[in-house]
Amino acid sequence: MKDTILIHLDTDAAPSAFDRIVAIDSGVQHVFSYSGVTPDNVMALVHGCIFTRGPKDLHRTAIFVGGSDVAAGEAVVAAVRKHMIAPARLTVSVMLDSNGANTTAVAAVRAANAYLTLGTTKSLVLGGTGPVGQRVARLLARNGGHVRLGSRTLDKADAACRVIRAAVPGAKIEPVAVGSSSDGPAALMGCDLVIAAGAAGAVLLPRKIRDTAKTLKVMIDLNGVPPAGIEGVELSDQGKDRDGVIAYGALGVGGAKMKIHRAAVAALFESNERVLDVDEIYALAAAI
Amino acid sequence: MKDTILIHLDTDAAPSAFDRIVAIDSGVQHVFSYSGVTPDNVMALVHGCIFTRGPKDLHRTAIFVGGSDVAAGEAVVAAVRKHMIAPARLTVSVMLDSNGANTTAVAAVRAANAYLTLGTTKSLVLGGTGPVGQRVARLLARNGGHVRLGSRTLDKADAACRVIRAAVPGAKIEPVAVGSSSDGPAALMGCDLVIAAGAAGAVLLPRKIRDTAKTLKVMIDLNGVPPAGIEGVELSDQGKDRDGVIAYGALGVGGAKMKIHRAAVAALFESNERVLDVDEIYALAAAI
Amino acid sequence: MKDTILIHLDTDAAPSAFDRIVAIDSGVQHVFSYSGVTPDNVMALVHGCIFTRGPKDLHRTAIFVGGSDVAAGEAVVAAVRKHMIAPARLTVSVMLDSNGANTTAVAAVRAANAYLTLGTTKSLVLGGTGPVGQRVARLLARNGGHVRLGSRTLDKADAACRVIRAAVPGAKIEPVAVGSSSDGPAALMGCDLVIAAGAAGAVLLPRKIRDTAKTLKVMIDLNGVPPAGIEGVELSDQGKDRDGVIAYGALGVGGAKMKIHRAAVAALFESNERVLDVDEIYALAAAI
Repeated sequence: MKDTILIHLDTDAAPSAFDRIVAIDSGVQHVFSYSGVTPDNVMALVHGCIFTRGPKDLHRTAIFVGGSDVAAGEAVVAAVRKHMIAPARLTVSVMLDSNGANTTAVAAVRAANAYLTLGTTKSLVLGGTGPVGQRVARLLARNGGHVRLGSRTLDKADAACRVIRAAVPGAKIEPVAVGSSSDGPAALMGCDLVIAAGAAGAVLLPRKIRDTAKTLKVMIDLNGVPPAGIEGVELSDQGKDRDGVIAYGALGVGGAKMKIHRAAVAALFESNERVLDVDEIYALAAAI
Repeated sequence: MKDTILIHLDTDAAPSAFDRIVAIDSGVQHVFSYSGVTPDNVMALVHGCIFTRGPKDLHRTAIFVGGSDVAAGEAVVAAVRKHMIAPARLTVSVMLDSNGANTTAVAAVRAANAYLTLGTTKSLVLGGTGPVGQRVARLLARNGGHVRLGSRTLDKADAACRVIRAAVPGAKIEPVAVGSSSDGPAALMGCDLVIAAGAAGAVLLPRKIRDTAKTLKVMIDLNGVPPAGIEGVELSDQGKDRDGVIAYGALGVGGAKMKIHRAAVAALFESNERVLDVDEIYALAAAI
Repeated sequence: MKDTILIHLDTDAAPSAFDRIVAIDSGVQHVFSYSGVTPDNVMALVHGCIFTRGPKDLHRTAIFVGGSDVAAGEAVVAAVRKHMIAPARLTVSVMLDSNGANTTAVAAVRAANAYLTLGTTKSLVLGGTGPVGQRVARLLARNGGHVRLGSRTLDKADAACRVIRAAVPGAKIEPVAVGSSSDGPAALMGCDLVIAAGAAGAVLLPRKIRDTAKTLKVMIDLNGVPPAGIEGVELSDQGKDRDGVIAYGALGVGGAKMKIHRAAVAALFESNERVLDVDEIYALAAAI
């Protein structure tokens, strides 16, 4: 059996050491990293993957797309798929995890799922237009719950909701503006779950607004740099009861995120046809 | 015994994923790839190879030169050899396969050899001034046959023939111009073998001209992108009888090319003194 | 147990092949190399090291800093240490060996130590303001001997001595100018040991001046390119008696240097907290 090889395509100027180390810890034998990857320079790399090994060994090569810019990563994945030759089964599996957005979103929603029945959960996603927030909202919507996607402006929230409705037919998702603190209580009204996925340094949910939400059961803050996005949640909270609400901080979600990342990379080598974006990684994580 | 390490020097902006994967499949334990390699920046890399391991372990390090530009690769190989210290046996083995030209040419001539006695074969090489075509013509001439090297202009064909005569004393090689379709019949007259190694997208030998060649026994088309360089040959032809002529297409030659590539990389580690260019790779391939 | 991973940070435009090969020969399983590393772009790489593995596995990741510019390497090591989170024990071990300066200086002083009691040795270090010379002088001073640090100008020698006195309290070190050949005899007066660590191509100690030093017992020339820095010493001298003085040339020191380099890289993986600069590598070498 041929050695496993991960072709690591990074859209940044240097390939992520984080992603290389996790690849090894996933059991990959060789990681070949490329930086500055764009849709325009990826063809030869894809052809190198599909034209070197025979059909029965193509599942021993796979592609991982990373980097700090999620949109750039999505464009590279699209180009990668275009340059593979699916009708002739000349494909290798590919995974997207730019900025860790997919594995983080999956870990957060999995954490919520341990306490809530997602199909009947009402959620508020703060920072919902960012790369992690969009994925969190999409996963919650796909599980059938009612989702409020919060952003500072209603226009941006609405645009993100439309993208999710296109991906998830029948999604019960609505945009909410949470630009001023007076928006908070209404947005939280009736919610079982709040997930904050905003930029570092912004307090998205102050304590006094959170206290207005009497139905809240779980709160998850994905901000890794103090101050917390949800005031009162600690970085290391991992299912901690805080005044009757189950709390998770970024580090508390991190352990599961790492396990999911490793399991997803390992799963790439089970066939030569997997495409692992957020929904597929969520399905994988459920089976861990 | 020390691990095997292949220092992969690529003249392109990114190191070839193809060459890295094949290196692993050749049994190499570690591939260290460099891009943008030129004769001017290669010295430290060569010294890193020859000054790190003792004499009895130098054969566990080797250099592979690749990239899309064959002339650039040849210049790097020359610089690599200059920076090694042969009198003190401070050398490592080195292989050139820019653009796959050497392994492709060897695989094509090996395919012809399965049907023809090369020493008495009369051949026409179309696209004979390109990197693959020059190597095909040189191998055929070295085997003692009569070779016609075809190009659109006689001047360019003549220049390529002079280079081959310098490398192969006594080579029976002549330039032919095949710029217009009326040149075809004369160039093919008496030929047992035609190999097309032109640029993608150019039909070098239309069917109606090929039909004038009553002596033709084998035709090999190395063009990997339709339309075929030899009209009527299919990409996957691998010894297929087409109207009494044995036909090979690019994919039909490809399996042997991959085997030859892997065997050549593996052979680098048999001593610290091998220099594998097209003639040496041909000799290796004969022994597979 | 997780695989060992060395993150190789090189300040040059291409990562050193020398350092990559030696890393493998030290037993490292995976070497991930970065070029063009500066204090400004190293944070994400350090975070990739410390945030991927749990506390019990952090010693299986380490950082090696190299490149031709020792000052640039020192600045990168400082930045690397700043971005680790020592209070939380989120650290990995780190080694500096830009230009091979640390391992070369250690090997030279270890060679001298085989013949001399360093605590009572009087030494002259020629080329004492360069990266290797400074480290040699510092090691000799730390061992308690009397050190003369020679440079062409007294000012530069004095500045280097001040740096060493700051690092080694109570160091018995004095600057000497050796700009003209008439300075030589006084600088050598009473010395047991002379180590030349100057730039290639400069004869720092002509034979007729050396002959004035009646007390000289050991002379070590670290210049790898003829002419020798100490006239009469051959590149391959390794404890050779030359007119009553034990002589070492660059190649004669080289074998020990390679062993020390490999041992130091291997030692990085014994804990997650080692910082290997010249003093720590010297201590390691004493135990080989």
